[in-house]
Amino acid sequence: VSFKKKALKSIRAEIITIGDELLIGQVIDTNSAWIGKQLSQVGIQVHQITSVSDEIGHMLDALVNALTRADMVLVTGGLGPTKDDKTKEMLCAFFGTSLEFSPEAYLDVESYFKKRGREVSDLNRRQAEVPGGCTVLSNKVGTAPGMWFEHQGKIIVSMPGVPHEMKFLMENEVIGRLKSHFHTPFILHRTLLTHGIGESVLAEKLEEFESKLPLGFQLAYLPSPGLVKLRLSATGEEAQVRVGMEELETRLTELVKDYLFGYDDDDIQSVLGRRLKALGWTISTAESCTGGTIGHLITSVPGSSAWYAGSTITYSYESKTRLLGVPADLIQKHGAVSEEVVLSMARNVREKLGTHCAVATSGVAGPGGGTPEKPVGTVWIGVALPDRIFARKLQLGDNRLITIRVASESALHFLRKALD
Amino acid sequence: VSFKKKALKSIRAEIITIGDELLIGQVIDTNSAWIGKQLSQVGIQVHQITSVSDEIGHMLDALVNALTRADMVLVTGGLGPTKDDKTKEMLCAFFGTSLEFSPEAYLDVESYFKKRGREVSDLNRRQAEVPGGCTVLSNKVGTAPGMWFEHQGKIIVSMPGVPHEMKFLMENEVIGRLKSHFHTPFILHRTLLTHGIGESVLAEKLEEFESKLPLGFQLAYLPSPGLVKLRLSATGEEAQVRVGMEELETRLTELVKDYLFGYDDDDIQSVLGRRLKALGWTISTAESCTGGTIGHLITSVPGSSAWYAGSTITYSYESKTRLLGVPADLIQKHGAVSEEVVLSMARNVREKLGTHCAVATSGVAGPGGGTPEKPVGTVWIGVALPDRIFARKLQLGDNRLITIRVASESALHFLRKALD
Repeated sequence: VSFKKKALKSIRAEIITIGDELLIGQVIDTNSAWIGKQLSQVGIQVHQITSVSDEIGHMLDALVNALTRADMVLVTGGLGPTKDDKTKEMLCAFFGTSLEFSPEAYLDVESYFKKRGREVSDLNRRQAEVPGGCTVLSNKVGTAPGMWFEHQGKIIVSMPGVPHEMKFLMENEVIGRLKSHFHTPFILHRTLLTHGIGESVLAEKLEEFESKLPLGFQLAYLPSPGLVKLRLSATGEEAQVRVGMEELETRLTELVKDYLFGYDDDDIQSVLGRRLKALGWTISTAESCTGGTIGHLITSVPGSSAWYAGSTITYSYESKTRLLGVPADLIQKHGAVSEEVVLSMARNVREKLGTHCAVATSGVAGPGGGTPEKPVGTVWIGVALPDRIFARKLQLGDNRLITIRVASESALHFLRKALD
Repeated sequence: VSFKKKALKSIRAEIITIGDELLIGQVIDTNSAWIGKQLSQVGIQVHQITSVSDEIGHMLDALVNALTRADMVLVTGGLGPTKDDKTKEMLCAFFGTSLEFSPEAYLDVESYFKKRGREVSDLNRRQAEVPGGCTVLSNKVGTAPGMWFEHQGKIIVSMPGVPHEMKFLMENEVIGRLKSHFHTPFILHRTLLTHGIGESVLAEKLEEFESKLPLGFQLAYLPSPGLVKLRLSATGEEAQVRVGMEELETRLTELVKDYLFGYDDDDIQSVLGRRLKALGWTISTAESCTGGTIGHLITSVPGSSAWYAGSTITYSYESKTRLLGVPADLIQKHGAVSEEVVLSMARNVREKLGTHCAVATSGVAGPGGGTPEKPVGTVWIGVALPDRIFARKLQLGDNRLITIRVASESALHFLRKALD
């Protein structure tokens, strides 16, 4: 009976992030949210996040306190080779051990520098020293090893604070170990990604669906500029949860099908890339106000050279004419931010690069350049296909970076929908 | 004597952010960093940031613990009109008081809804209830009032979690009150931004400098892919700190001058933009492996149309020839990822767009496309100026997104340095 109780009790984690730069606001702690998301997906509940200074006493205090409340403590930061990184010293003090050279960790350090054609300095050699008694977690993307400790039935993990190193360790070393160490409950998430509909309209549309969700199932709305994610979560007996989830996903998909573009970790650049690849099609882009962001998004997908031919970024009037052959008098007559110009841009880049399709943007990202007829946030998007060409106007807000981002993603969304 | 001691002791704050959404990673806590920056600018040191759930017991625990360490505790979140917002209940429990209707707070609530042409609902009327004994802090941009408590010589402030409401309260109500309530010490930070040198080489170079830092001064290394920030911090008597900081900054600047590109919140795209603007110069770019990221960075700076003409993104072989006129046999002979091709790209885009200078990139971002001679992470960068042209080769790692980012920033760094 006591075993069953234990298995049902939710597993509690705490996160400690280390570094004065977090406290003085020089760096925003994005690690904790990312870790929180990963842990909740495997049924581990984050109870508290604590950010502390680089002082050993303070770190130690935070660790001791966290262990009174939680089953595991994940620590990030303070593992660099310099003097102000003191996490390892703190861990040695906590466990009453001292640093030992780990040949295993050194292999990663050595290979990291070898790949970059550099020698390992004495300072970096010390990255391979870890507190006695820990399990080294192999860091293939940096020089500070992760460390795993078991202590009075609880787990302590130390990872570097550099986000991509922490993520590598979580994904490759930590999550799997935590799942097998703890008896985690079964939790299933499924996220539907929508574009082109606001949160409140969506909520009205889904009111009935939501009110009839079976016990153990939840629906959450996660809005961000330009899109709304719908996350279905369920916990319970695995087989039952899987069947229920499949049924709900089918119903929800039907309800939002006009806006749905992907699932879970998809993004529009990956979804569009897969679609183009399946069609054997290529794409080109002609960017003005988005300044390269569409190209940046498309090429962030590995393998995108299979479908992406290239782009022109025509930030000045003359460049639109020189690079793309947009007639100067067309720009003169309608203005650079116009349906006519954006259609000409899309048509010309498609022809020039000989691709199947193309998208183009021209707008006023701000803060300057707005007029009463074309206020800041006005963006025209053009889409060219083998058999047709069309343009759409967006009215976005006055935040430059958000306007650029939403306009760029919208261009890809309009094309994807046109390929349906 | 005792007074003097107290005046010299630094004032400690802690921040508590409330909300399950922070713990499950649905929302990144950006409030704490912003508050940390504001407080450290007025000489208040943030000792710890704690994020807790919406449970009253948990919040109470965090508040009690924070008060044992700090002179003031700033709490954000948990002040909405819905059931899961329980901060006021917690504060009542802590102070042993109950909620009282505040006519003063109600004026703000009423005027908020009036402006939007709406009536105040019963639910929203309750926003004007505050724990007895608190000072209401007027919130002109939302419906939840801020609250200021004095308790056994310490200060507790409660603010809404919505960033722009919290910021309004901090700027208009909190910071001024804190400055006059505490005898705050003077704190000064100065950050030097370096590129082109690793953390450990830098640390060796600065070992002597660091070991001879005067009392009250500290140096911290903040590395991220492609750059290392050096932060000098000092606390003490203002005039003395300013003189000492200026001297140290001059010495540190001299020691790292070959790598220094900016200070504090600068980034390379802003620094380069300011330099080009000062020169009255324009720039164009020709991107292959960086796929638009250089354009994306340049155009993230407001006003960049003054110096940025545009770009070609030539992701395919043919596009390099079609858009940029790179001779097909040059690509055939040397490969697209080569010094010859990247020089041709930089030269041609500069001429085509008639700009003063240009940068070009061509490389293997991976994961595919690597060869023994040109492994994944090989990137050539070309820089064209009115009187000269040069190329540099980088060997970056096997993380596609980091390679793209670091190559893009490096291109801007190489150009900036060439303009010195």
